[in-house]
Amino acid sequence: MTHQAPPPSPQATVKRGAKRAKYDTDTLYAILDAMPLCHVGYIIDGRPVVIPTLQWREGDTLYWHGASTSRTIAAAAEQDVCVTVSILDGLVIARSAFNHSVNYRSVVVHGRPRLIDDPEHKEAALKAMIESLTPGRWDALRPMHAKEFKATGVLALDLSDASCKVRSGSPVDDAEDYDLPIWAGVLPLRSQWGTPEPDGRVLPGVETPEAIASFPQGPMFRGL
Amino acid sequence: MTHQAPPPSPQATVKRGAKRAKYDTDTLYAILDAMPLCHVGYIIDGRPVVIPTLQWREGDTLYWHGASTSRTIAAAAEQDVCVTVSILDGLVIARSAFNHSVNYRSVVVHGRPRLIDDPEHKEAALKAMIESLTPGRWDALRPMHAKEFKATGVLALDLSDASCKVRSGSPVDDAEDYDLPIWAGVLPLRSQWGTPEPDGRVLPGVETPEAIASFPQGPMFRGL
Repeated sequence: MTHQAPPPSPQATVKRGAKRAKYDTDTLYAILDAMPLCHVGYIIDGRPVVIPTLQWREGDTLYWHGASTSRTIAAAAEQDVCVTVSILDGLVIARSAFNHSVNYRSVVVHGRPRLIDDPEHKEAALKAMIESLTPGRWDALRPMHAKEFKATGVLALDLSDASCKVRSGSPVDDAEDYDLPIWAGVLPLRSQWGTPEPDGRVLPGVETPEAIASFPQGPMFRGL
Repeated sequence: MTHQAPPPSPQATVKRGAKRAKYDTDTLYAILDAMPLCHVGYIIDGRPVVIPTLQWREGDTLYWHGASTSRTIAAAAEQDVCVTVSILDGLVIARSAFNHSVNYRSVVVHGRPRLIDDPEHKEAALKAMIESLTPGRWDALRPMHAKEFKATGVLALDLSDASCKVRSGSPVDDAEDYDLPIWAGVLPLRSQWGTPEPDGRVLPGVETPEAIASFPQGPMFRGL
């Protein structure tokens, strides 16, 4: 059951459009599980830097990864970051410019990430990344080389300081504007997974795994 | 013609995956014009804050807007920001976990935005936002009220300090991994605009404007 929880901290409290804010974990998990693309904000050399990457979730922890030598992965473990996940669901076309809007689902998470040093935890997290996208795939892959494992940095961020915003439905026009002969409504946007495209070097007799063949119709990103 | 230009500044130079970096304006404009959703990184109270919003472009200037009283619009005009636009084009499924990747197009812009004070410039920018999405729409709308105009803050950011990254195509596996009986390829992702959905209060006899009716098949977001 969805319940409305209180905002977790001052920085995680939605300031603009507070009526669209949600703080319940059902909404939070649904958005994060629907969209792997996230944007991570760091401060590097005194400037904000926003880098797109993939996120995945286990319980109340959000993960992302990168080259262990990258400036962002190194910087992240020493500072508070902001991770934002957004899904654009449509354009909201109103009778006035001012009442135009967009339908969307978004999550903003604040916190201090932890660089995962423990090898077992790190391997489990990387396995979870692969499995969250393509269940059963991890064991079918060529095992990780030690140098690959070392070259990969994994960050974990508690979801305790997260907020969601959701807008859906029709435009909301000024009462008197509904008398105007102006079309208004929604231009919906949907993301769709296409048919898996094997590369040209899959060996004869190797079938498309079920988790990949069924991906476009599967449970992942059902909300995308 | 696309040409490879030099990176514009140290902070706009791609650090990771430099072979995927592009600095030509054709690539830059194509990505910005394909995806209105952007993520703006600010520093507020010493922390990075990443807020999703819509961007639009006129020539070498990127614009976004917000409530003129919002902390982000106020903060943006007094600091360097980072605006990132990302399009996820697919999951790249390799023969090893390490060689997994994603296909994507992204832009990162650094710079100090200007709050547009001049009323004519501000109105022209807001008109350009509406027209970039739905050509011909501005003149059909109920004109802006003075208080709406005042309540809207518009920011402009030069595109002089921008970089793009693009990945497309098949996975790139280690040479010896191609001998393994493991499926590899791409799971393509495409965004599609659906049929326009009028709200329940469009007056009888009001037709769907051509720019809206043709939107799903139109030139906008052709690259989305």
